[in-house]
Amino acid sequence: MILTVTLNAALDVTYPVASLVPDSAHQIERAHVRAGGKGVNVARVLEHFGQPVLATGLVGGTSGAAIRHDLDGAGIRHHFCGIAGESRRTVTVVAADTGDATAFNERGPLVSIAEWRDFLEHFDHLVRDASVVVCSGSLPPGLPVDAYAELCRRARTHGIPSIVDTAGPALVAAAEAAPATVKPNSVELRATTRAPDLRAGAGQLLAHGAEAVVVSLGPDGLLAVTHDNAWQARPPGRISGNPTGAGDACVAALASGLLTGSEWPDRLRTAVAWSAAAVPMPYAGDVDDETYRRMFDRVQLEEIHAFHSDR
Amino acid sequence: MILTVTLNAALDVTYPVASLVPDSAHQIERAHVRAGGKGVNVARVLEHFGQPVLATGLVGGTSGAAIRHDLDGAGIRHHFCGIAGESRRTVTVVAADTGDATAFNERGPLVSIAEWRDFLEHFDHLVRDASVVVCSGSLPPGLPVDAYAELCRRARTHGIPSIVDTAGPALVAAAEAAPATVKPNSVELRATTRAPDLRAGAGQLLAHGAEAVVVSLGPDGLLAVTHDNAWQARPPGRISGNPTGAGDACVAALASGLLTGSEWPDRLRTAVAWSAAAVPMPYAGDVDDETYRRMFDRVQLEEIHAFHSDR
Repeated sequence: MILTVTLNAALDVTYPVASLVPDSAHQIERAHVRAGGKGVNVARVLEHFGQPVLATGLVGGTSGAAIRHDLDGAGIRHHFCGIAGESRRTVTVVAADTGDATAFNERGPLVSIAEWRDFLEHFDHLVRDASVVVCSGSLPPGLPVDAYAELCRRARTHGIPSIVDTAGPALVAAAEAAPATVKPNSVELRATTRAPDLRAGAGQLLAHGAEAVVVSLGPDGLLAVTHDNAWQARPPGRISGNPTGAGDACVAALASGLLTGSEWPDRLRTAVAWSAAAVPMPYAGDVDDETYRRMFDRVQLEEIHAFHSDR
Repeated sequence: MILTVTLNAALDVTYPVASLVPDSAHQIERAHVRAGGKGVNVARVLEHFGQPVLATGLVGGTSGAAIRHDLDGAGIRHHFCGIAGESRRTVTVVAADTGDATAFNERGPLVSIAEWRDFLEHFDHLVRDASVVVCSGSLPPGLPVDAYAELCRRARTHGIPSIVDTAGPALVAAAEAAPATVKPNSVELRATTRAPDLRAGAGQLLAHGAEAVVVSLGPDGLLAVTHDNAWQARPPGRISGNPTGAGDACVAALASGLLTGSEWPDRLRTAVAWSAAAVPMPYAGDVDDETYRRMFDRVQLEEIHAFHSDR
């Protein structure tokens, strides 16, 4: 089973508008509301592709209740820890005229040290049944910067590999816990490492301890770097739609690949195809089967030999 | 006691951002959340000025619980009717660089006929202790277009005057129930009556049955028209800030004037001063005492004699 951890789970609200007009009032005929946060999206994609998954993390308040209720409705297995604070909301305004998605992401509830300790105990129970752990997204206020690192270390004591998708100091700390894979996007990697290029940035995270670094490049696909190899995997063409959620579909594929022990080339083909399949869908966590099937055999995979000489 | 009725009460959420950038993600450090809806704002202003007030209307779900909780905290007396649906939220994004307020207003919960009947019974109990009824804002889906009209008629059977602040067909229907005052803003009056000018539009609402029409004109103050008289009342100068809530402060003053039986010139001076006092405040329902005191004696009141010849 793949255990996804979302410490800053969210209730994702989408407001469709004809046009986004600053300094005016917009009437919202119908809001779309669903459970979100990166790890929840990963769980949704895994569930869609029939992979065994359990979603955990922290939820609280009425938004937390709504998150649990939505996951029940979607048939996604979950076991979250309750906290006193109110889970955050995100509001995304999608304009029909431009296709623009303008997001407002609340920061999240304050989590107490006692709540974090309770979660670690809860995690220790859940991880025993897991084969892969996925840690995704931002940390809510109050949590230590090495929160994901601590989870990776605990998983490791059971011999269970982890994938971490986060940014900034939490990403660096997680890399030091020797996770199987870290998956920043290119913007996050540049901001976190301040390296001159993506390969150098990935090299820094490998040096910190990560076993592999997969950098998502938006429409250009993925750059994957291990201690022995590097690949670039590209989709065969542009797909129009909403890229939100493509990174989570990529992480879902990497987790699935770890679970089945697939080879890197296969794992990266799947990651690009699942990411591409997320783009035509308006909401994060959804994937389009037809796009996935059309993409899979046409992903362009290139082994980057030049990378070896950089070491 | 002034009874304010908010059939489409809301949980008003404000997101402060440095700048509103379409098609990007905004991190919200701290959201401001409070009970809202026009009638709730009117109650808040009346409470501020020490007027006896009770807020009623329809609330439901977790937003409804949050609305009640916020009113408790603010010390505003309330007695709402519960409904099965979830009260709406409004989200207003306030940009620090431009001062722009960009609002996203959910439409509101579906109210059943049975819930509406229950509310009418509830209203019949509350109205016996009221001296003035204020009906404010949009109608949630499911309510008849003459919902506010029905409340005005019921108040009238007890000899209690009503003020109605709404727009469109609900405003026309309410005018036919002979309320003491209707208070559209100039945009709502034009859209509702399609009259060539504001005086003609106000004349239409008088012809429908309203005893007085007060049209709020933003920074230009108010136009007030009765069957015998017309006045324009202007603030002495521009006030910078957020005009949201100025209309509700105006309605609060009109209700207070009806309660005490003040003369129209006095009532309009107060209405302009309270409206002006709402502008410097970032959240609807708040008023600035210093602005109010500075404004009151300097409101420019003009009786419009020309109006008589139009009849």
